[in-house]
Amino acid sequence: MPVETISWQGGIDGTLHIIDQTALPGKLRVVPVHTVKRLWQAIQRLEVRGAPAIGVAAAFGAVIAVRKERVRETKTLLAHVFEAMDYLATARPTAVNLSWALERMRDVARSSFHRPPREFRETLLAEARRILEEDKAVCRKMGEHGAKLIPDGANVLTHCNAGALATAGVGTALAVLFEAHAQKRNIHVFVDETRPLLQGARLTMWELMREGIDCTLICDSMAAQVMKEGRVDLVITGADRIAANGDTANKIGTYGLSVLARHHKVPFVVVAPTSTFDLSLVSGDRIPIEERGADEITRGFGKRTAPEDAPVYAPAFDVTPHRNITAIVTENGVIRRPNRASVAKAFGRT
Amino acid sequence: MPVETISWQGGIDGTLHIIDQTALPGKLRVVPVHTVKRLWQAIQRLEVRGAPAIGVAAAFGAVIAVRKERVRETKTLLAHVFEAMDYLATARPTAVNLSWALERMRDVARSSFHRPPREFRETLLAEARRILEEDKAVCRKMGEHGAKLIPDGANVLTHCNAGALATAGVGTALAVLFEAHAQKRNIHVFVDETRPLLQGARLTMWELMREGIDCTLICDSMAAQVMKEGRVDLVITGADRIAANGDTANKIGTYGLSVLARHHKVPFVVVAPTSTFDLSLVSGDRIPIEERGADEITRGFGKRTAPEDAPVYAPAFDVTPHRNITAIVTENGVIRRPNRASVAKAFGRT
Repeated sequence: MPVETISWQGGIDGTLHIIDQTALPGKLRVVPVHTVKRLWQAIQRLEVRGAPAIGVAAAFGAVIAVRKERVRETKTLLAHVFEAMDYLATARPTAVNLSWALERMRDVARSSFHRPPREFRETLLAEARRILEEDKAVCRKMGEHGAKLIPDGANVLTHCNAGALATAGVGTALAVLFEAHAQKRNIHVFVDETRPLLQGARLTMWELMREGIDCTLICDSMAAQVMKEGRVDLVITGADRIAANGDTANKIGTYGLSVLARHHKVPFVVVAPTSTFDLSLVSGDRIPIEERGADEITRGFGKRTAPEDAPVYAPAFDVTPHRNITAIVTENGVIRRPNRASVAKAFGRT
Repeated sequence: MPVETISWQGGIDGTLHIIDQTALPGKLRVVPVHTVKRLWQAIQRLEVRGAPAIGVAAAFGAVIAVRKERVRETKTLLAHVFEAMDYLATARPTAVNLSWALERMRDVARSSFHRPPREFRETLLAEARRILEEDKAVCRKMGEHGAKLIPDGANVLTHCNAGALATAGVGTALAVLFEAHAQKRNIHVFVDETRPLLQGARLTMWELMREGIDCTLICDSMAAQVMKEGRVDLVITGADRIAANGDTANKIGTYGLSVLARHHKVPFVVVAPTSTFDLSLVSGDRIPIEERGADEITRGFGKRTAPEDAPVYAPAFDVTPHRNITAIVTENGVIRRPNRASVAKAFGRT
């Protein structure tokens, strides 16, 4: 059974709970989130992370914003929701699922403006719960569609964490591997540790080992070597934002991996819900790339591992051009050879 | 001024001193090495590391093996030297400089067999000192030859540490950068942190910052991104063993970097003394690749960053095929487009 990365316990006065992923794999710690500010922090500090998961968590931010409010006018609540949504949108810039979920909550809030306060709040909670449940269903569907791309006995390489911890359901890329495993495909997974925050080592290894999937941890710099040894049949990753032409932003290191995969003639598959697509962007050049603090690199293991004041460049994401991507799996099916035309077709825009 | 990575203090009863590189960049700690066993440990634990440096350090192992020996027969000393050389050769398998230096000491020991014990010991010390002094001269020459390849204002990317800490002199790849800097070429260096042991973050950044060279630390997985951004004019690395066709073993990650450099049309330069060539190997396929302990990845800096019992693959080196290498710089000059013919020519074997 996958873990419950995000859950809402209780009714409109209930509480959001998240797994604090910074404590993994040492501790499985579930923490309550009582305020919008605390939620912003949890997203910014990567206690909750992964494009779909931060979307779902942020949706509950609207509920938290009006939680235990005893106001008489929905107008006041609406203002609180809008303020919270604007604030949460600033937590992390790259994953579009965050703004997608916030926009959905804004829409619902806007169209429930005429309702009495209690009903307004219930509508918000219902919508956030819907987003969470939809994410679970979407994960399952991605798993089913994607599993068809995994040959029996496949050696797969993955980067970062695109598992249950990155979603409200069973994951994106890992949903595919969980499904292939359930179908007894006898897979083996190489897991890039994924510097600087080691989501691969800490989270993906934990999820795969928990499910009894055969896996091997490597440093990011070893991926080329295992490909050269002929030990990788497929690379599979999640995504944080996908442009209209299929260019895909994902965890730093993904772009390099796609170049290496292409060089070694290894298929490169991206798995992401349709909510990860940002069709307003014609190409990946327009995707904002978050830069993070130097300390994540120089002090990542709790101990300073570079000279004091070492200048650091720390992009958290990079963009993989669509020509390096063999297929994108969504809840609706598989987009092969993603490009402007095939993505438009998948979204019924031809 | 470069640091003294390896030094011998005193006469034949003197002591070998090395910088304990596992303490850098936090502490610059010089430690004495009194026994052959301790020297083996220091090499194995990477207190002293870098292909040329472990060659030089191991040479002094012959002197340590017969230090303070009060024996009457050179034959006994010779046996001790041979035993020590055989033992030290097992410390690390990939760098050929180690066996090269040990072989030189064996040869000198063999040909001094007829001398009285004290003279025999003095001959060994003189030879070890010669190896150290030669390494210094060789580093300087590599720096001079290589600097001609560095354009003014160049952005250079390097991996691992090929600096003064990797040699007895000013380094291999970094010797080139030090020389270019001395010639006021206005260079900037991207430094791969180099997982798992972070020689780039800990050692190369320390050396470059000490010399006032403009540098930026990145994670290994960011190299592709900075190349894509057009910010890398040249990749430069050291080497641990070079086959007769120019195939080059170096720190894990170098091979992937060479594929990325080729993809982005960035020249890829290797800097290594002729003692790094193993002309007995027709290609890099024959180079033994050291695998190291899982703990270096899962517990690299005191903190466990992967689940208990996580399976790990930990090759310490990889092999870059000669077709990915633009030039190899040695103390004798530059081998452009290294291959069987150009390497043979450089060694006067045509």
